[in-house]
Amino acid sequence: MRNGVSFDNLNPAAFLERSALVYPGKPAVIHGERIYSYAEFRERVCRLAGALRGLGVGRGDRVAILSPNTPAMLEAKFGPLRIGAVLVPLNTRLGSREIAYILNHSGAKALLFDTESADTVRGLTADCPGVETYVRIADGAPDAADIAGPEYESLLPAADPVEEPVELDERETIAINYTSGTTGFPKGVVFHARGAYLNALGEAMETGMNAETVYLWTLPLFHCNGWCFPWGVTAVGGTHVCLRKIDPAEIYRLIEIRGVTHLCCAPTVLTALYSSPAAQGRRLDGLTIATAGAPPAPHVIRTIEGMGAKVHHLYGLTETYGPHTICAEQPGWSGLAAAERGRIKSRQGVPYGIAHTGLRVVDSDMAEVPWDGETLGEVVMRGNNVMTGYYNDPQATAKAFAGGWFHSGDLAVRHPDGYIELRDRAKDIIISGGENISSQEVEKVIMDHPDVLEVSVVGVPDEKWGEVPKAFVVPVPGAGLSAAQVIAFTRERMAHFKCPWHVAFGELPKTATGKIQKFVLREREWAGREKRIQG
Amino acid sequence: MRNGVSFDNLNPAAFLERSALVYPGKPAVIHGERIYSYAEFRERVCRLAGALRGLGVGRGDRVAILSPNTPAMLEAKFGPLRIGAVLVPLNTRLGSREIAYILNHSGAKALLFDTESADTVRGLTADCPGVETYVRIADGAPDAADIAGPEYESLLPAADPVEEPVELDERETIAINYTSGTTGFPKGVVFHARGAYLNALGEAMETGMNAETVYLWTLPLFHCNGWCFPWGVTAVGGTHVCLRKIDPAEIYRLIEIRGVTHLCCAPTVLTALYSSPAAQGRRLDGLTIATAGAPPAPHVIRTIEGMGAKVHHLYGLTETYGPHTICAEQPGWSGLAAAERGRIKSRQGVPYGIAHTGLRVVDSDMAEVPWDGETLGEVVMRGNNVMTGYYNDPQATAKAFAGGWFHSGDLAVRHPDGYIELRDRAKDIIISGGENISSQEVEKVIMDHPDVLEVSVVGVPDEKWGEVPKAFVVPVPGAGLSAAQVIAFTRERMAHFKCPWHVAFGELPKTATGKIQKFVLREREWAGREKRIQG
Repeated sequence: MRNGVSFDNLNPAAFLERSALVYPGKPAVIHGERIYSYAEFRERVCRLAGALRGLGVGRGDRVAILSPNTPAMLEAKFGPLRIGAVLVPLNTRLGSREIAYILNHSGAKALLFDTESADTVRGLTADCPGVETYVRIADGAPDAADIAGPEYESLLPAADPVEEPVELDERETIAINYTSGTTGFPKGVVFHARGAYLNALGEAMETGMNAETVYLWTLPLFHCNGWCFPWGVTAVGGTHVCLRKIDPAEIYRLIEIRGVTHLCCAPTVLTALYSSPAAQGRRLDGLTIATAGAPPAPHVIRTIEGMGAKVHHLYGLTETYGPHTICAEQPGWSGLAAAERGRIKSRQGVPYGIAHTGLRVVDSDMAEVPWDGETLGEVVMRGNNVMTGYYNDPQATAKAFAGGWFHSGDLAVRHPDGYIELRDRAKDIIISGGENISSQEVEKVIMDHPDVLEVSVVGVPDEKWGEVPKAFVVPVPGAGLSAAQVIAFTRERMAHFKCPWHVAFGELPKTATGKIQKFVLREREWAGREKRIQG
Repeated sequence: MRNGVSFDNLNPAAFLERSALVYPGKPAVIHGERIYSYAEFRERVCRLAGALRGLGVGRGDRVAILSPNTPAMLEAKFGPLRIGAVLVPLNTRLGSREIAYILNHSGAKALLFDTESADTVRGLTADCPGVETYVRIADGAPDAADIAGPEYESLLPAADPVEEPVELDERETIAINYTSGTTGFPKGVVFHARGAYLNALGEAMETGMNAETVYLWTLPLFHCNGWCFPWGVTAVGGTHVCLRKIDPAEIYRLIEIRGVTHLCCAPTVLTALYSSPAAQGRRLDGLTIATAGAPPAPHVIRTIEGMGAKVHHLYGLTETYGPHTICAEQPGWSGLAAAERGRIKSRQGVPYGIAHTGLRVVDSDMAEVPWDGETLGEVVMRGNNVMTGYYNDPQATAKAFAGGWFHSGDLAVRHPDGYIELRDRAKDIIISGGENISSQEVEKVIMDHPDVLEVSVVGVPDEKWGEVPKAFVVPVPGAGLSAAQVIAFTRERMAHFKCPWHVAFGELPKTATGKIQKFVLREREWAGREKRIQG
């Protein structure tokens, strides 16, 4: 439908136009000592759009980017959009082979890459004949001029700025985000303009952002398009503060010197924050934190809230443009004891206020499970923030949309108050002697031990029970924690059949977004055997 | 388009469903000693929908309501919507003849009315054959059982609740709001679900509402559907506090005992608030006020801000679902002196953050006027919050949409920073012997004369006083009204210096949108002289 007197296609490109009009002189993007005002940010975006056009990128063409959280990465959320091109953000931890797969599958015509990833790019150019142009972004790492193509910062001044964003139908594709692909090949989640626009507003409303917001980029911008916050922060005229990598000391420094009001991250980043030596004597008063990506342990929430921050616990998937639910605070909760408050806030909650009305927990016949806080079912979603489908993968799309709902693959219970609480990924449920054990439930208990920094629990083979829980523990540095202590601690607090039979200590494998990779732990334990998969 | 896995029609009905799910026990509506929780509010809405259905009201049928700000009036914003019926809110100050016209023009099948307006209704029943049912709302005034039909509160318990809102296409009509129509016939502004949904979110975002919001209904709910705040407050799970009439003492009392955080009103209500004896020793700290409806004098803004409230100055029209612009605060403004701050905040500002990108100030060739703060032009708008058109009036719609933009009929300048400032109404202030006279105040008094159909008051030259008020009166046809009678009528009712010195009879010059063109009257009177402009 065309824009007219009474109709505007929803498009996040409009947010930048508006903020550049209203706040031209206000800091839009801060990166180290560099500060771009909204007028400058828009100017750079217009030039990026023009540069891409000059490189032969047109409407509907795919443009990939491989970069940490830099100004170029923020500009990429608006530049291709301006000419109707489709952004393909790439996970910076992937190897050449995986990235080559995504570039080829998405049919990317151009790849913008931070020179930090030069080696990865060198390893794939031969395999990606469709990529016509490589653009180097020499932001923090040395340049890599051996990879033929223009350099980002020299490209912009030479470009013809695109002053008017092209008009898109609001259901037109603006981005394809590939899932991490723990099994088989990564799948490309299709975002459209309407979903990105509405989810960005949802983020702004739920986390209380406004023109005074200073947002620190602790969340990777490639991940679900930074959960749509690039558009949400820009919509309210807030300030983006860039961050190339997670470093607690640097995060505390930026919070202080830049007056950061908001940030998002996975719970593991929160653990890193409070357990870092840099946390000594630090407070987080006035800071609003949205955490998602994995269920936060109650201990994590109460520790961070104890430092003064306000924590919003969100839940969603790449397939839902990021967050779909929020553990909305009830009037009485502020008076709860910290432990109870942490416990109750670790639930995933209820749909966002910007009506993502489609949230259910269902059994295998798509019937809603009882709201009893006990019956497990699968979380399914519908609505304006559910992807259009997987790119060029009608089979996977049909499977994910079976029964007219998007199947998250997450198992949850629904409490009598309507709040959902994840129990596990379907594949993470441990079935021991016929009983279901939620690995997350066991993890939450172990996290309450004062000497435990992080933990992951998976099912491991057992002759008698089929499988039994095993805990992989990262102890607080210097703590002398034994396996027997961990087991005893859990046996005092939960049914014995749920308690770990084995405990191992050491590092945990993680994704780029800080998620613990349970499948890596599981694969090691199950090598050569067949694990029974539920769900 | 039908709802599906990846698409939900935007519909404010979803806001109530969500808040009733998330905050069932929280106060949704407070009216005197009555408090309805969100579960109860929803239940009443479901029953209202069922009652209307029982009365033969179906999808697309029009349901009118004539009521002050009561629970029934709030319920009316959601009940008809639930069955796809179209709400027609009526201005409680209109007479029987005007309301009969609107009921007939809109083809209303039912009229819900507060018994306070029983006399008005008695005067129209014979003229409105299409109205099949009259529903009395005996809220504050005595019942009026002589008007045949059910009583609202007895209707609800007997009704079959409508548990599921019907699915509407998001561009389907949900309300028709008749403009005040000081001349000729009122025109019906068509609201659709998408516009109401987005504007409600705009209100919530711009005024910083959230689940802790307690919103006092100082703004008439009939006026632009209470600027979409019924849906906005409900979207965030805030609390509505009802108010049958403007009474400063009662407003202060409710602010205090109910912990009011937000309210909206016209500038005249603010003047009443601070100039009331009840204002003695009162503070408004923590209160957010959105004011619109007429340009607030800088004095009003600085006085109210001086009492501690935060003031948002908004501007729009019924045709834009209420506010279209906000005088967005710039980083440096908080440090300005009160007088300068009041002056700068009295500008109408910039488009809302929820991209109402279509705002221009244009000359008669639709070319944007220079951003010089001096060149007058007409404010024109486009976007998702512009009405679909005037109900059953293609000619008026075509005229209002000439050149592909909605013509507001308001004259403004655009400052170098992009902020618009209305001039037309600022010019209406009459400065006589150093005293400010509000032309609207004089007009309101004259309009109370039974023989006056229309009036416009402007300042005309006077040797001694600089200028004095002159009234241009359109008498009721057939009435033998003299200038002396008009002057005498005003002198009995207001300070003598405000009363017109001259009265002329005849037609009034008007814009395409029906607004009186005071500047034409003024130019005739001031031809060859220079008028001092204030503001």
